[in-house]
Amino acid sequence: MPITVVGSIAYDTVKTPFGARERMLGGAAVHFALAASFFDDVRVVGPVGDDFGEEQLAVLRRRGVDVSDVERIEGGKTFFWQGEYGWDLNSRETLDTQLGVFEGFTPKLSEQSRSSEVLFLANIQPDLQRDVREQLPHARFVALDSMNLWIDIARDSLVRAIENVDCVILNDAELRQLTGKPNLVTAAREILSWTAAEQASTAQRRGPSVIVAKQGEYGAALVTRDGFFALPAYPLESVIDPTGAGDTFAGGLVGYIAAHPDETLSDGLLRRAMAHATVLASFNVEEFGTERVERLTGNEIVARIQELHAMTQFSGAPLALRG
Amino acid sequence: MPITVVGSIAYDTVKTPFGARERMLGGAAVHFALAASFFDDVRVVGPVGDDFGEEQLAVLRRRGVDVSDVERIEGGKTFFWQGEYGWDLNSRETLDTQLGVFEGFTPKLSEQSRSSEVLFLANIQPDLQRDVREQLPHARFVALDSMNLWIDIARDSLVRAIENVDCVILNDAELRQLTGKPNLVTAAREILSWTAAEQASTAQRRGPSVIVAKQGEYGAALVTRDGFFALPAYPLESVIDPTGAGDTFAGGLVGYIAAHPDETLSDGLLRRAMAHATVLASFNVEEFGTERVERLTGNEIVARIQELHAMTQFSGAPLALRG
Repeated sequence: MPITVVGSIAYDTVKTPFGARERMLGGAAVHFALAASFFDDVRVVGPVGDDFGEEQLAVLRRRGVDVSDVERIEGGKTFFWQGEYGWDLNSRETLDTQLGVFEGFTPKLSEQSRSSEVLFLANIQPDLQRDVREQLPHARFVALDSMNLWIDIARDSLVRAIENVDCVILNDAELRQLTGKPNLVTAAREILSWTAAEQASTAQRRGPSVIVAKQGEYGAALVTRDGFFALPAYPLESVIDPTGAGDTFAGGLVGYIAAHPDETLSDGLLRRAMAHATVLASFNVEEFGTERVERLTGNEIVARIQELHAMTQFSGAPLALRG
Repeated sequence: MPITVVGSIAYDTVKTPFGARERMLGGAAVHFALAASFFDDVRVVGPVGDDFGEEQLAVLRRRGVDVSDVERIEGGKTFFWQGEYGWDLNSRETLDTQLGVFEGFTPKLSEQSRSSEVLFLANIQPDLQRDVREQLPHARFVALDSMNLWIDIARDSLVRAIENVDCVILNDAELRQLTGKPNLVTAAREILSWTAAEQASTAQRRGPSVIVAKQGEYGAALVTRDGFFALPAYPLESVIDPTGAGDTFAGGLVGYIAAHPDETLSDGLLRRAMAHATVLASFNVEEFGTERVERLTGNEIVARIQELHAMTQFSGAPLALRG
């Protein structure tokens, strides 16, 4: 099923212990789209400024991504983020954020983008997420990301946005902050209970049924009404730049689900989607920005899925325990 | 194979967001021994003071643990630790530590304790760990724990201790600190390269071959020369007190290995040991101190192993990826 993603298209200036890049291609929608493009058709909706080059768009086009809804704002500047990572890459400091064209952004979706059956609402202001969600009332699968800023200053709107999606993808600190519950499983179950009760006209919307907790270098967990699943990150001896890992993960997850339109949203399907998400994210962090994923191949993904599978299996041999 | 554990026997005063306990039974050797007692014979070596009660020893005896090498120091006080955990249990503050009989402790092992084929060196001063290790030169499997304090003030001795064991069980921050390598896989591989080259008279000692990284609520990872394995923690909606979780984990791991004397130390065996360690630790944190593990049954362990197995499996369906 075709996928529409709405989110940031950005220039990122990043410093890690292993090097630095100035104004490289980034943004949630870009990382998501590149990852999802291995699975299905992807359409990107988001604004850029005059300073955004054709060569950046070409990175997306080469992966078959439809960029006709990338809106170029005359006289505007592309969203810019600058950050620096600590020695073990688990902490990062934002040095500069320039909203540029994202200030006053109103998503304009073409008829084609509105016809997608799968929608990813990347981390943007929750009012905008709700606005976009309403433009795709018949989407079969909608996933959402957010961040601590919106939990702080726009929690009510974010909760209403969540009530109208199928899948919430957040990191575990955000899940705790959003619910006020320190226990991750309890926090996820709380969100699973949120339903858009007031939306009588759209009775098929029943609130989120899939909660994904991103856990950085530790992997990710999946909580549904039926069960729990957790997967470690693919172990890498060399991690260069974590920027975009979460959105690449989301692209793998949502992309895999979109590529299986005939399957019900079972735990089995979701687990395989988690594995593909994990593997996509592992490639993303091996180099700066989009560098590694730009030249990634399907065969490399499949090979790493098999490795990840082998690294997570154990067999339970019967054992007579004492007492 | 019988197991000897050398480490602390303690009184713990603990406060968590879910309650508090004063002077409850604790200590690394106690938590380890209770967990390992589900798998094999366990002998505890460690000092206590006059204030240590028969009812505390009875907790160990009821699980079949041999306490004849628990040394009661007349006029001494049992090791005491007091701590308080933060709201999500991921941070804790030590409020008081009283070494008591642990000050000036020299492990005295009976002939029986020295005859064990499996040895666990719980977190004590590394000089003492080396001293004990030398008293069991023919042990078939030796595992070691430590802490940031010894890495800070006795790193050289700790490295020499590690060179003479088979298995190192540390949390991931300690592995990073010990090696100075921010990447966990790289840190583990560094330790796998440490060998006791100077010990020509004991050529069978070849340094550690098993590195276990404890990751708290995220689970644990296993790094060997042959491969990598990671397992999430068993998900719990109610975690009451994490005290002793690491030692309980070690007891499950080492106990499972001891109970399989005829198997080579393969990755398959180690993975099953990791699963049992994970499950034992999950029971430990459900209540304060040793409360839950004291009344744990073998059937409960087996049932949770099966649940953990079900929560970590995924199948790789073939998929034609694009590009």
